[in-house]
Amino acid sequence: MTDPPKDPIVCSYLLEIPHVSASDNRSDEQRLKKSLFVTSGLKEIGIPLSLCRELPGLLRRSDYRIRAVVVNVDHRWELVEIDDRYENPSCYSVAVDLGSTVIAFYLVDLSEGRVVDTVSVENPQIAHGEDILTRIQFASTEDGLHLLQGLVIECFNQAIERICKKHSVCVKDVYAISVSGNTTMSHLFLGLDPSALCKEPYVPVVNTPDMISAAELGISIHPRGYVYVIPNMGSYVGGDILGGILVSGMHQTDDISLYVDVGTNAEVVLGNSEWMVACAGAAGPALEGGVLKSGKRAQKGAIEHVDINRKTLELSYRTIENGAPDGICGSGVIRLLAEMFLAGLVDSSGVLVAKKDPLRMIDTRHGKGYIIVPGEQAAHGKDILITEADIKNLMRSKGAMFTILRIVTQSVGITFKEVEHFFVAGTFGSYIEPEKAITIGMLPDIPIDKYKRLGNASGKGAVEVLLSNRARRELSKIRDKITYLEMNVNANFMSQFTSSLFLPHTDLSLFPSVAKKRE
Amino acid sequence: MTDPPKDPIVCSYLLEIPHVSASDNRSDEQRLKKSLFVTSGLKEIGIPLSLCRELPGLLRRSDYRIRAVVVNVDHRWELVEIDDRYENPSCYSVAVDLGSTVIAFYLVDLSEGRVVDTVSVENPQIAHGEDILTRIQFASTEDGLHLLQGLVIECFNQAIERICKKHSVCVKDVYAISVSGNTTMSHLFLGLDPSALCKEPYVPVVNTPDMISAAELGISIHPRGYVYVIPNMGSYVGGDILGGILVSGMHQTDDISLYVDVGTNAEVVLGNSEWMVACAGAAGPALEGGVLKSGKRAQKGAIEHVDINRKTLELSYRTIENGAPDGICGSGVIRLLAEMFLAGLVDSSGVLVAKKDPLRMIDTRHGKGYIIVPGEQAAHGKDILITEADIKNLMRSKGAMFTILRIVTQSVGITFKEVEHFFVAGTFGSYIEPEKAITIGMLPDIPIDKYKRLGNASGKGAVEVLLSNRARRELSKIRDKITYLEMNVNANFMSQFTSSLFLPHTDLSLFPSVAKKRE
Repeated sequence: MTDPPKDPIVCSYLLEIPHVSASDNRSDEQRLKKSLFVTSGLKEIGIPLSLCRELPGLLRRSDYRIRAVVVNVDHRWELVEIDDRYENPSCYSVAVDLGSTVIAFYLVDLSEGRVVDTVSVENPQIAHGEDILTRIQFASTEDGLHLLQGLVIECFNQAIERICKKHSVCVKDVYAISVSGNTTMSHLFLGLDPSALCKEPYVPVVNTPDMISAAELGISIHPRGYVYVIPNMGSYVGGDILGGILVSGMHQTDDISLYVDVGTNAEVVLGNSEWMVACAGAAGPALEGGVLKSGKRAQKGAIEHVDINRKTLELSYRTIENGAPDGICGSGVIRLLAEMFLAGLVDSSGVLVAKKDPLRMIDTRHGKGYIIVPGEQAAHGKDILITEADIKNLMRSKGAMFTILRIVTQSVGITFKEVEHFFVAGTFGSYIEPEKAITIGMLPDIPIDKYKRLGNASGKGAVEVLLSNRARRELSKIRDKITYLEMNVNANFMSQFTSSLFLPHTDLSLFPSVAKKRE
Repeated sequence: MTDPPKDPIVCSYLLEIPHVSASDNRSDEQRLKKSLFVTSGLKEIGIPLSLCRELPGLLRRSDYRIRAVVVNVDHRWELVEIDDRYENPSCYSVAVDLGSTVIAFYLVDLSEGRVVDTVSVENPQIAHGEDILTRIQFASTEDGLHLLQGLVIECFNQAIERICKKHSVCVKDVYAISVSGNTTMSHLFLGLDPSALCKEPYVPVVNTPDMISAAELGISIHPRGYVYVIPNMGSYVGGDILGGILVSGMHQTDDISLYVDVGTNAEVVLGNSEWMVACAGAAGPALEGGVLKSGKRAQKGAIEHVDINRKTLELSYRTIENGAPDGICGSGVIRLLAEMFLAGLVDSSGVLVAKKDPLRMIDTRHGKGYIIVPGEQAAHGKDILITEADIKNLMRSKGAMFTILRIVTQSVGITFKEVEHFFVAGTFGSYIEPEKAITIGMLPDIPIDKYKRLGNASGKGAVEVLLSNRARRELSKIRDKITYLEMNVNANFMSQFTSSLFLPHTDLSLFPSVAKKRE
């Protein structure tokens, strides 16, 4: 069992308030504050007038034994509920990983300090734009922002109700919500105009939002509950990344770490407890499998694992949940390209070597292609394949990723060798096999054991800030520490990028382990 | 002209926010905060989400030149308004002296640090009870509390609108209100159940209310404005007294001071910068002239000044605003009794000496009486007189006052001689002549120059807390410093009170100056 958290965002206390007497005629409010202080050590607690009004009646009705719930709001504690549930100290909160595609909700029992359950739903804003840019444009149409915000709030309410109901938790016992999302998602959630986020110089409306009344946002938890949105560092380094850094712990050690969230955009943070540099750039949707001819999301039936025998060139694969194959997902495609490269089926410039395995090579409208699964074995009856155009796309994505990593390290004058920890975050990131990503020149050629998968670091960060007020203060410090490096204005970018458009790279000395494998 | 206040509760700043650029892509919110910090030195300012939403549009529309208004709310500054009034830094607040009879409003220009105007209106709650006890009882009837609160809030709204209109100030430019009142009045204003205030052990619901959103209270100033209610020390030592102590400055000096607010109740505070003792007791309405046969409030026509020639016994008087006489007010009656006593018209036990001036002495249904103004000279054609019953009433009131003062000094083991400053507060208190009050044994026989009249100290305290945030912090310290002495349980009270029911006292050594005058 997990230890109860030391300083959660919401605390519930069972209090026996001293009765009034001739020698103690302090006000009800003062006696409540004193009891809270004695029990919890908390000082200077804000008490809303509405609760002051309830206090005298409650004290008499409950024979002075009450439950008090307090929330850590910005710089002080705020009383949000008092009632006669003297036996029941449980209280809940919900952490939200607000992704542009999927929104994940974590029901967190704060008295026990554990995640009770998780539920994921598709972000309903997708109806108004798959990608972020389309949604920003939609937000600038009349009532568009209001509509997008309403969709996500409604989605929150439904998901929170569902997850609470499943565990017989009353939504009114949820007193706080944390939200970790990229800067655009956070802006849309808060109803803030996102239009400047995608125009130079990429200015958010807000970097560090105050905690907000849930009722003001229309979120149906406890009516005096609060919402905490993880701050952002700019348009491209959002709360999801800051939350991930928090989870990685890289801000607490002298070791130099690299943190990468791989997705449509690649967000990279380099640093340690002393300093941090962040940068972001379009890694291209190819890595997530989106734009490839046979690409698909990581769902049932997607090929996630490919092996090619270097001698026989025999190909074996595995699909998610062993479904009939109908496409290949991002992590599968990285492995596929690595295997093809090592087997000599594709050369270092990304050209298919047709003569190597003529049976699997065909001509398509998009140039040459390599068949992974022939149509007769595929769920939809069509060949699952990778074309040269796909490979070009992939190489641009992996090249961008590597270039960003290289420029960010060069910017502070260090080499990859000096990096002690390499954190790979994001749902997609969790499935990447570092060895394969190194083989295609996407990630630097450092010892595999330096790579650490963080899984959904954004969601974990959202949970963390509910379990620990110190974590929220640390987040502010992390934010203040980061220097943002604007990739678009970096003169080196194009030349370095061009060198990265090879498998693994024009400069093979950067990838000694790959060179060795190719021998 | 008054100096502008150093740290008013509301500050308005004209800000030129830096434009965004490639080298400065902090969020609008961060650039606003930075500008505020550079201009004002204020840190950690809370920004409501609603203002964040307005920010990007406003910055562009105003060419980045805006006005920002911040309020000092409890422990931090809160942004309450941003607009394009770049030329106009003026902002206002209203101080309220919330009396049970009269409510006084002070329009305070915070940018200039001065009171613009004052308006006084009758407390509309009087319709549901002249005295406080009746109102507390009415509050416990169904909807009674809500009705009483509604009346006073409506009264606030009308008065604030009126005083603003008169000076062409928009009510939306009023960002804060301070309220100084006794504990019952403050409870009724906040909609807090006052029923425990008049029952042993006299427990308020709240001693130190947080600042409250004006909108939540239904007060029509700026919708994001705040209301500060001066804290209280218990049922009998209210915010009006704490505000008065603040104004007296007695908490800032080593000298020992006595502070007295004379009214239906007498509230007394003794102490200095190190310690304070407070107590309160019923001084009796007689002192305010209310229950006397010819008593009346201090309004036009009330006799406020009486002289009696010791030799000829000729009586001369002056009325308020030189109106035709129709009664005598509190300060007039104190002087009258002192003059009568020195002229030998009343003996030390309060019995009229009829033979001294038989022409002015008559028999009434209420015992013997002394005619101050014969009916033919009075506005209403009836004799204005003082009866023996009136004198008994007066002696009980003055005796109670003196006893409270004596017990409070004895409780800390000091004599009146050690009191360096004697502050007399309250509208009524301002009109008391210390010398006359000493003569009848109401106030201690100390050098006259130690007496200081504070006037409406409660109202001045309410203004002070708007002009100075330090003053509000001092108020908290004053509150924490005070020890309350429960008079009702004091064993000495009755014996001391009995000795005080003489003119000036059974122990003449306590009043050497009076003994000298009588010689």
